[in-house]
Amino acid sequence: MTRELTVSIDAMGGDAGPGVVISALVRTLERQPGTHFLLHGDEAALTPLLGKFPKLKKRVTVRHAPERVTMDDKPSQIARRGQNTSMWRAVASVKKGEADVAVSAGNTGALMAMSLLQLRTIEGISRPAIASIWPTMKGRTVVLDVGANVTATAEQLVDFAVMGEAFAHAMLGLERPIVGLLNVGSEEMKGNDAVKGAAQILRAAKLPIAFHGFVEGNDITQGVVDVVVTDGFTGNIALKTAEGAAKLIAQYLKQALRRSLLGTIGGFFARGALNTLKRNIDPRAAAGGIFLGLGGIVVKAHGGTDAIGFAGALDMAIDMARADINARITTDRSAITPDMEQAALT
Amino acid sequence: MTRELTVSIDAMGGDAGPGVVISALVRTLERQPGTHFLLHGDEAALTPLLGKFPKLKKRVTVRHAPERVTMDDKPSQIARRGQNTSMWRAVASVKKGEADVAVSAGNTGALMAMSLLQLRTIEGISRPAIASIWPTMKGRTVVLDVGANVTATAEQLVDFAVMGEAFAHAMLGLERPIVGLLNVGSEEMKGNDAVKGAAQILRAAKLPIAFHGFVEGNDITQGVVDVVVTDGFTGNIALKTAEGAAKLIAQYLKQALRRSLLGTIGGFFARGALNTLKRNIDPRAAAGGIFLGLGGIVVKAHGGTDAIGFAGALDMAIDMARADINARITTDRSAITPDMEQAALT
Repeated sequence: MTRELTVSIDAMGGDAGPGVVISALVRTLERQPGTHFLLHGDEAALTPLLGKFPKLKKRVTVRHAPERVTMDDKPSQIARRGQNTSMWRAVASVKKGEADVAVSAGNTGALMAMSLLQLRTIEGISRPAIASIWPTMKGRTVVLDVGANVTATAEQLVDFAVMGEAFAHAMLGLERPIVGLLNVGSEEMKGNDAVKGAAQILRAAKLPIAFHGFVEGNDITQGVVDVVVTDGFTGNIALKTAEGAAKLIAQYLKQALRRSLLGTIGGFFARGALNTLKRNIDPRAAAGGIFLGLGGIVVKAHGGTDAIGFAGALDMAIDMARADINARITTDRSAITPDMEQAALT
Repeated sequence: MTRELTVSIDAMGGDAGPGVVISALVRTLERQPGTHFLLHGDEAALTPLLGKFPKLKKRVTVRHAPERVTMDDKPSQIARRGQNTSMWRAVASVKKGEADVAVSAGNTGALMAMSLLQLRTIEGISRPAIASIWPTMKGRTVVLDVGANVTATAEQLVDFAVMGEAFAHAMLGLERPIVGLLNVGSEEMKGNDAVKGAAQILRAAKLPIAFHGFVEGNDITQGVVDVVVTDGFTGNIALKTAEGAAKLIAQYLKQALRRSLLGTIGGFFARGALNTLKRNIDPRAAAGGIFLGLGGIVVKAHGGTDAIGFAGALDMAIDMARADINARITTDRSAITPDMEQAALT
């Protein structure tokens, strides 16, 4: 028997709008029939859409929110509309205990700011991080931070290691996930002060974490470790660069197949295989960014996502709530005392 | 009429050994028949190899070097053997004016250290950088630094912008290359202090450089700008992550085509097209790292390269020597006065 959960949703976030959200809910309800949904957004838009799905309608409570956060909003505009937005209220439901988890496809920066303001961080964690799941030669690898912070100290990288490990344990089903620190070489003397310091803490402390040492950029998709830890500046650029490389190769493949008659014939016969390839590198399958380290669970779906992508984010949110990953983060982080950090860094 | 050039070569660097270097020289000499080569390395190994290529032999002077730098050498070992190595002597030939340019497939860190010690930096440039050329949707883009330094100040990022622009102008044939700064978003307020400061200097100064502003990771392969500037930590990780992503996709494609009979048939008909794809994403075609900012021209070939890759590095070295790119770097850098930097950063 699994516990029935309530998911709070910002129905107005992202480019796609409430139609995509409702289609995603239909998909998710099939897989998770016991789920309740709190839908925050424009009641006049949401109610008629729900009318078409009577089975879903029974599981949904619509909460009217007069405002929304748009993708181009400046921080000042977001602050002004603040508590009247569907995004703020989706997170508030988690804060109030009405929902187990919140999901939004809206502006990442605004969602992180509103989540941090309302939910704070887990005790012992100084900053939240955004994690993403990458496909690899061996399976899947969690990479964090991919954009919550533009810098990270040694201690914050250690926080990310703890958070990423707990997530991989709960969500990838690994008993003891292997953690690596992203660097420009695998030798001990390489790297900037933050990664060198973090490695010292992770090596010195008798942590409940299996620390591999440094990994390089190409090790991510090789699946050398289960969790790759980096600062949000490098992680965000690595993630987007890899996405760009995948797009470029897909375009090369298309061009190459079109250029000759034999290529076109080959492409025709191989179209099943090529569709499998497309699915494998489809970023929608990996959900959006996963916020870790907050005092409640919030999942960010891709802003430009469709119903499949949004449903993936909903599934992940439900799984994270069931796994209670914040409890593991608290326990593991408290195993690293300030004394150990001090000893490693001096 | 093009001037006859002399290329100084570390024949013992890299994993492949002198056999690969000699094969590469044969290829390059066909394309650049007027070139002289100074070959530094083990005379007993090099002379018999050259005996098989009488035409090449006439253009080569062998200089015996008793030692070599291996890929696993620690800095202390390199320092001890130092001046007796083929790598040191290949660079020394440029310092002494015997050669126009040096090429080595050896240990990147050692080559950069030996080059910096002997050639110093160009006046006005505080640190050298390593550039790489990426294939993009629109052509090619220069990315730097990809590993010479693990940190960079705002002023050093500006140096890299000047160096990358001069390289793109000379080597990609662009009259006014467009330069972008790699960041986690394109908005002005995003990023760490170094990128924000560099953007201010590049915007404020009336530079002979076309500055686009910030670009994100996925913009590199989109070809949004001709030159992407970043610190060596982020750049190295982005480069290796993209290489890893390309490898993963190539493996997916292979697996997908093998999985079904139709896929296998399709792959057979499309094999010409698939080979074109393979060539397009072949890292050997892009030569190794290009060292910029040194008081002489040094090109690093990939350590694990074959004759095609090494010949690519030789061709690039010859083109760079002809283009005299250091002169453009000196002129452009001197256009940014300390006053302008001060004004932008305060």
